[in-house]
Amino acid sequence: MMTQTTRIWTAALIVVGDEILSGRTQDKNIAQVASWLGVQGIRLREVRVVPDVMDAIVEAVNTLRARNDYLFTTGGIGPTHDDITVDAVAQALGVPVVIHPRAHAILDAYYATRGGLNEARLRMARVPEGAGLIENRLSGAPGIHAENIFLMAGVPSITAQMLDGMTGTLEGGLPLLSRTVGCWVAESEIAELLRDTERNHDGVSIGSYPFFREGRVGANFVIRSTDTAVVSACATALSDALSALGREPFDGGI
Amino acid sequence: MMTQTTRIWTAALIVVGDEILSGRTQDKNIAQVASWLGVQGIRLREVRVVPDVMDAIVEAVNTLRARNDYLFTTGGIGPTHDDITVDAVAQALGVPVVIHPRAHAILDAYYATRGGLNEARLRMARVPEGAGLIENRLSGAPGIHAENIFLMAGVPSITAQMLDGMTGTLEGGLPLLSRTVGCWVAESEIAELLRDTERNHDGVSIGSYPFFREGRVGANFVIRSTDTAVVSACATALSDALSALGREPFDGGI
Repeated sequence: MMTQTTRIWTAALIVVGDEILSGRTQDKNIAQVASWLGVQGIRLREVRVVPDVMDAIVEAVNTLRARNDYLFTTGGIGPTHDDITVDAVAQALGVPVVIHPRAHAILDAYYATRGGLNEARLRMARVPEGAGLIENRLSGAPGIHAENIFLMAGVPSITAQMLDGMTGTLEGGLPLLSRTVGCWVAESEIAELLRDTERNHDGVSIGSYPFFREGRVGANFVIRSTDTAVVSACATALSDALSALGREPFDGGI
Repeated sequence: MMTQTTRIWTAALIVVGDEILSGRTQDKNIAQVASWLGVQGIRLREVRVVPDVMDAIVEAVNTLRARNDYLFTTGGIGPTHDDITVDAVAQALGVPVVIHPRAHAILDAYYATRGGLNEARLRMARVPEGAGLIENRLSGAPGIHAENIFLMAGVPSITAQMLDGMTGTLEGGLPLLSRTVGCWVAESEIAELLRDTERNHDGVSIGSYPFFREGRVGANFVIRSTDTAVVSACATALSDALSALGREPFDGGI
């Protein structure tokens, strides 16, 4: 069967945060953004973690927005002096920072029963000129959508809300499917088999991830392709080959 | 008192891994490398997560090694076809890949009781010409040290061993110290106080990290400087100011 060549949609992620670079905080956003993008049919191609420093953010924004369909950022959109992601994105886009009227109204309503809007809180209504908003039911302050850039919160639970609100709104391609074949075998014993199996199945990549459990060495072999039939055929071929070698492959899930 | 200007030592980290970019695996190496570097008096300035793709790794290696004292990589140094970090670093450095005699001997000894050395396992003795080794007591295969680049494993427990073996061997500067003042206050209520406190203490940065616990809003304010006296003075000033506002600061630890 002829396979139609399909466009691959790509994204990059910038994690803005001294707290990640200091090791104080374990990042949770890379995995959740990566998983969410996969479901949208968009491939996460690169992540950069940068400090809360204007030039570092601007450089990363300009490089990554140009070579990906979408760019996401997490962190640095709060009310305090170290929150400079909006300013950096505006500088990268060459536009001024303005107060977004609807964000202003959202914050006004949110803080009406929480001590009122002050100067710091109003900072969270600042957007690069021309930007739209990303809904956030959790904490009032919205995310921001400027050209192909999506600015989200640093707090993972708030980022999750923003991703949820964007589900199905971005154009993507075929999701990258995966199937995992596990086996109690050292990956170094079957490296040649893995390489040959990958070569024999068009458009498939096989990743090999060793583990050490219950005193035994094993590995998960993750088979990825956009074509479900090819993924299945490749998983069957690999499992059969492992069985023929006297190994016991098991289903490692999708 | 005059403060002597001290050199700041910097590092970058490249996480090589399709499994991180797909969201399948939650990265653990960024936090552990960041924490380890902090203890060595080296600041982690930037992290990039790149796919198992030659050009992507080479680009990141060349950019980051040039502008940092040290560059670390995790992932892609195993025995299978998708392990290409050694080749990418060699290409970036413009040197061939060679078999390191001591790595060869280490692997020979390690696999003597584990089925013997085969072609795939011998791949783990490949290094960029001129490189040295990083000891790894856990799984035989060593890490690699080429110029200012340190290639480590993707499996976090093995990376931990390699970091442990390098402790105290890299030249660094003054460690960045931190002290955390916690408070049951919305960061947006005291944003001005935070900015002013930072400005009043030379060489200090204050990060603000909100949290929501037990139905209450609070934040940790992380004060960072290389000078322990300045960190203490700043923490005291911030705590006193919060108390004066009727808030109850608490010690958030170091």
